[in-house]
Amino acid sequence: MAKLYVVGIGPGGLCHITQRAREVIENCKVVVGYTFYIELIKDLITGKEVIKTGMRGEIERCKMAIDKVRDGFDTCIISTGDAGLYGMAGPIYEMGEDIEVEVVPGITAAFSAASELGAPVMHDFCTISLSDLMTPWEVIEKRIKCAAEGDFIIAIYNPKSKGRVDHINKAVDIILKHRDGKTPVGLVKNSGRDGNEKVVTTLDSIDFDFIDMMTVVLIGNSNSYIKNNFIVTPRGYKL
Amino acid sequence: MAKLYVVGIGPGGLCHITQRAREVIENCKVVVGYTFYIELIKDLITGKEVIKTGMRGEIERCKMAIDKVRDGFDTCIISTGDAGLYGMAGPIYEMGEDIEVEVVPGITAAFSAASELGAPVMHDFCTISLSDLMTPWEVIEKRIKCAAEGDFIIAIYNPKSKGRVDHINKAVDIILKHRDGKTPVGLVKNSGRDGNEKVVTTLDSIDFDFIDMMTVVLIGNSNSYIKNNFIVTPRGYKL
Repeated sequence: MAKLYVVGIGPGGLCHITQRAREVIENCKVVVGYTFYIELIKDLITGKEVIKTGMRGEIERCKMAIDKVRDGFDTCIISTGDAGLYGMAGPIYEMGEDIEVEVVPGITAAFSAASELGAPVMHDFCTISLSDLMTPWEVIEKRIKCAAEGDFIIAIYNPKSKGRVDHINKAVDIILKHRDGKTPVGLVKNSGRDGNEKVVTTLDSIDFDFIDMMTVVLIGNSNSYIKNNFIVTPRGYKL
Repeated sequence: MAKLYVVGIGPGGLCHITQRAREVIENCKVVVGYTFYIELIKDLITGKEVIKTGMRGEIERCKMAIDKVRDGFDTCIISTGDAGLYGMAGPIYEMGEDIEVEVVPGITAAFSAASELGAPVMHDFCTISLSDLMTPWEVIEKRIKCAAEGDFIIAIYNPKSKGRVDHINKAVDIILKHRDGKTPVGLVKNSGRDGNEKVVTTLDSIDFDFIDMMTVVLIGNSNSYIKNNFIVTPRGYKL
């Protein structure tokens, strides 16, 4: 029976793809994804049927992938990062109850960015997406407040996009009520793929112009510090 | 110049290792790790110098790895999951300022477990370790409370260990003050490797005896639901 693979390809650089993700993509007849993601794995998909659509076409893509499996073709639908976190696993499980599904996990942007910044995510951490397309802004604000109060390391996804340029400023203002202005912050653009750029700064000195929709913002906890332009969060070991 | 690679090998099954992690391990002369982790990658390290020590030997291992690099040998020190989150990247950056370091990210247990449970981690989420060896229990309790209040999906690491058998019970009691008893919960033992077992249950029906130190506990948010023994957290798409 044909199967649907929901595959996280990691941040984009093929060096960060898992063995399982590569093998699944190579074995599928059909590959479905957002145009930009398909471009990232173009070396793995020559000769396959490729279905790509533009931004915000997520549900359309899921439906097309499910239909391909119903037609008898092993199919993979790809997300960057992990296939679950803000990815395609959810809608597939919501809509595809009659087909067999395997989710293949991948490296999410928080960990890819962390690896480029040193060791900022060494302790309890959370991810928060600032996209309010499907989540009320009040819910997002409450999560930011709770994460700041709980002294979590915070990885902010979708800090900015068309029409939402000041969400990241609002988020930082909330965090500043609970965390020192000198808290280390890492901004990583195109983490784990071509075009990679990073800035190590502090909560009160963020260059908001640097941040775009391809940037992950990593905010340290109350114990994080900057050393040689890397961010380190101690776990608590006696050294 | 020799270099130290801090490598996350993922959950343990070699299918979940990234290409970069595999290539780094294969190219290093020396491999350092906790005995159990070394066993997981034994097929990749034949012929290498292997330095392994027991549990709680983390700092000893880091020092030995740094010394090997100072002696001129390309060396990797391995963690399961990601190399940052609760891993070895922190102590290495704290102690090894004179050597070159590359952190290689890996699939952390939360994402591996999520992939086996369906799509529980589709929205803002956090990880909390219940180990109070290096973190005061009051800090951990506060984080649990904040995560529950903020309606984060919660991945609990180190839910139990020798001498700390009731931490997970205390954590669940705190979460139950903020979240419905029918909230879906996934317990995954040995996620992503041999011996994998999972249980899908609810917050008020957890079988605490199933949980051991190799188990990740995943707690859904207020929108999560159970379907065909999988956990699904909607992102909010109109389907």
